[in-house]
Amino acid sequence: MDAISVIRTKRDRGRLGDAQIDWVIDAYTRGEVADEQMSALAMAILLNGMEREEIARWTAAMIASGERMDFSSLPRPTADKHSTGGVGDKITLPLAPLVAACGAAVPQLSGRGLGHTGGTLDKMESIPGWRALLSNEEMLGVLDEVGCVICAAGDGLAPADKKLYALRDVTGTVEAIPLIASSIMSKKIAEGTGALVLDVKVGSGAFMKNLDDARELARTMVGLGTDHGVRTVALLTDMSTPLGLTAGNALEVRESVEVLAGGGPADVVELTLALAREMLDAAGLPDADPARALADGSAMDHWRRMVAAQGGDPDAPLPVARERHVLRAETSGVLTRLDAYAVGVAAWRLGAGRARKEDPVQAGAGVELHAKPGDRVTAGAPLLTLHTDTPERFDYALQALAGDAIEITDAGSHEPTPLVLDRIA
Amino acid sequence: MDAISVIRTKRDRGRLGDAQIDWVIDAYTRGEVADEQMSALAMAILLNGMEREEIARWTAAMIASGERMDFSSLPRPTADKHSTGGVGDKITLPLAPLVAACGAAVPQLSGRGLGHTGGTLDKMESIPGWRALLSNEEMLGVLDEVGCVICAAGDGLAPADKKLYALRDVTGTVEAIPLIASSIMSKKIAEGTGALVLDVKVGSGAFMKNLDDARELARTMVGLGTDHGVRTVALLTDMSTPLGLTAGNALEVRESVEVLAGGGPADVVELTLALAREMLDAAGLPDADPARALADGSAMDHWRRMVAAQGGDPDAPLPVARERHVLRAETSGVLTRLDAYAVGVAAWRLGAGRARKEDPVQAGAGVELHAKPGDRVTAGAPLLTLHTDTPERFDYALQALAGDAIEITDAGSHEPTPLVLDRIA
Repeated sequence: MDAISVIRTKRDRGRLGDAQIDWVIDAYTRGEVADEQMSALAMAILLNGMEREEIARWTAAMIASGERMDFSSLPRPTADKHSTGGVGDKITLPLAPLVAACGAAVPQLSGRGLGHTGGTLDKMESIPGWRALLSNEEMLGVLDEVGCVICAAGDGLAPADKKLYALRDVTGTVEAIPLIASSIMSKKIAEGTGALVLDVKVGSGAFMKNLDDARELARTMVGLGTDHGVRTVALLTDMSTPLGLTAGNALEVRESVEVLAGGGPADVVELTLALAREMLDAAGLPDADPARALADGSAMDHWRRMVAAQGGDPDAPLPVARERHVLRAETSGVLTRLDAYAVGVAAWRLGAGRARKEDPVQAGAGVELHAKPGDRVTAGAPLLTLHTDTPERFDYALQALAGDAIEITDAGSHEPTPLVLDRIA
Repeated sequence: MDAISVIRTKRDRGRLGDAQIDWVIDAYTRGEVADEQMSALAMAILLNGMEREEIARWTAAMIASGERMDFSSLPRPTADKHSTGGVGDKITLPLAPLVAACGAAVPQLSGRGLGHTGGTLDKMESIPGWRALLSNEEMLGVLDEVGCVICAAGDGLAPADKKLYALRDVTGTVEAIPLIASSIMSKKIAEGTGALVLDVKVGSGAFMKNLDDARELARTMVGLGTDHGVRTVALLTDMSTPLGLTAGNALEVRESVEVLAGGGPADVVELTLALAREMLDAAGLPDADPARALADGSAMDHWRRMVAAQGGDPDAPLPVARERHVLRAETSGVLTRLDAYAVGVAAWRLGAGRARKEDPVQAGAGVELHAKPGDRVTAGAPLLTLHTDTPERFDYALQALAGDAIEITDAGSHEPTPLVLDRIA
């Protein structure tokens, strides 16, 4: 077996054999297949595709590259959620304690943000004292005691994916559906959850810009999960405008706590409940009532215990950015577009995100929305507030919001996009 | 400018801009663009192609990565030949002194073999004392004094190509017509020849297995040469069976000397004369008579002087392999197939070629043919003699010649393939 023959097979539109896939993933993890060989293969996969059987084997080989976790000792069924990433997508924060409050165990292994989409761990780390890095034992302890945990995935899970993801990031090969699907699912399957709900984002602020691509990705992932014995459902949800009224780390934590307190923006509440119902259903708890767990304070109670169990102080004041800049409506009318990608890039440039993995993020930086598409606005009224510790970044952030990122229509009638676009099971 | 945006442009079937091409070639040569980025780009080029203008700019950027030679001080017009590589293709050896004898100067910068095709330098190095490595001054001296020189290309010519070729070799991206064309032509244009004849091989023993691909490659290269002021012509020639009666290093030198002595196999003589006429015509010497220069000994005289000028002894006995094995015809009939690729692989396995750049080659190893397609053979008569210093390799070489590599047809009528299949100017 050699790397060139594997590359040639895919380059010439062939189907990779099981032995080829097993060998190339293992040899790449061990460093025998070089980065320049794997990136050529990744580009050939991106352009020529993979069949369902190939993706399944590729995913299995990535799982086999590392350890697998096992939650079978827990007395409760496990359920996890994965979002493909969006702007203002803080749903994991209220969702994990909410689902735990309804009786499932939620082992939420999360990541950091890269590019214009935020990362759950970056958001949680704006809570003073909170720790993302737990040992496997600590993680199981929090999960057993509280019912939910949000933490970084250990290095032992799917190391082949870790290496391949970093390579794809610098070689223009991120956007390959087979590789996105196998990357997400290898980690989730190795993590050992029994049920998984996928939130596949569609729109300008998401990886998938159109519904067809998002459907293909969702179907591929649901198939992979099902084949590995994980009850998997996907919701396709709108990411043409940010979720909620904030994009940024501490800003999103504050909004999440509002939701847990029974308030918060309607779209965040709607999506949190929709995903909670899917998770509970997939976990075998169809009669649980997440709306009630939000209303009666039990979700908030789980949140506070989870934060405290990981060293955080749920009562500590959250960081606030040193400087603010208000962007006002230029005309009166109906806000017909507030582009998710533009807001994500602005938040990123303000310091909420990072350009390289090793960069720090600002806890207080981000964008606050004062109107959502469909709202009527008046000339001169605040549309957005930009937050940062480094005011020299305002200009660069405002550039992202220029052009057609914001549209106010005079005689506007705005047809709202539904939040949940499709469901794939 | 960054590597990922260049990769994405080609990945998404876009046209690379001039500034993108100039930047990526320069940055790759300097090491700023990493191997894994360039290999992803090479795969995207292989699968999505390049337009003529892109290939022209890519070639110009590779030329600009290094120095250019200048033969304008020579009193004679320059002409060079390049073959895309075949089995038994020793044509450069008789051709260079023949064309020099007819009045042109032939600066033949050559390469070593890799894989199943032989390399001109490996063949010449079987002559005791002969040196492939000359300084630019030595090279010009031999060219001026003798009229022809066969030597290794200096490190200063198109260093971007040297680096990219080595990368393509290990990443399954050799077979991209735009990259093959720009690789060959950047070296030949940087070398500074005034006229260039391309021998584009077609068939099992060549890179190009079919006439359409070979025509596309030939047209691309002729266009590139013409655009850079080099009078360029291509012949498409058959490589379904080996050229002549030998494949191997010293074996092919011996056959080349036979041609220079006025004998030799008919196909080698035919192709040598066809290419010589094209070179002389392109060099502005249409009235030269290469057949006469072969017959009157002047081509042989130039050969002997060229070998001697580079430290070789034209009268020294050539190396002979220590062991031989004769493969005999199994049945009587007409030999209807003797596959070029199979013979090339057999010669390679016997020690005539190398698997890695740093491997040595055996001077005496190779395959000797006792019949050519179209010849009538008798059961038990010798078909091939295998030569090697390492007889444990016989079995592995014979495996390459099993199956349908050799076909003898009982009631055979064999329609011979013409040697020159097409001409593109």
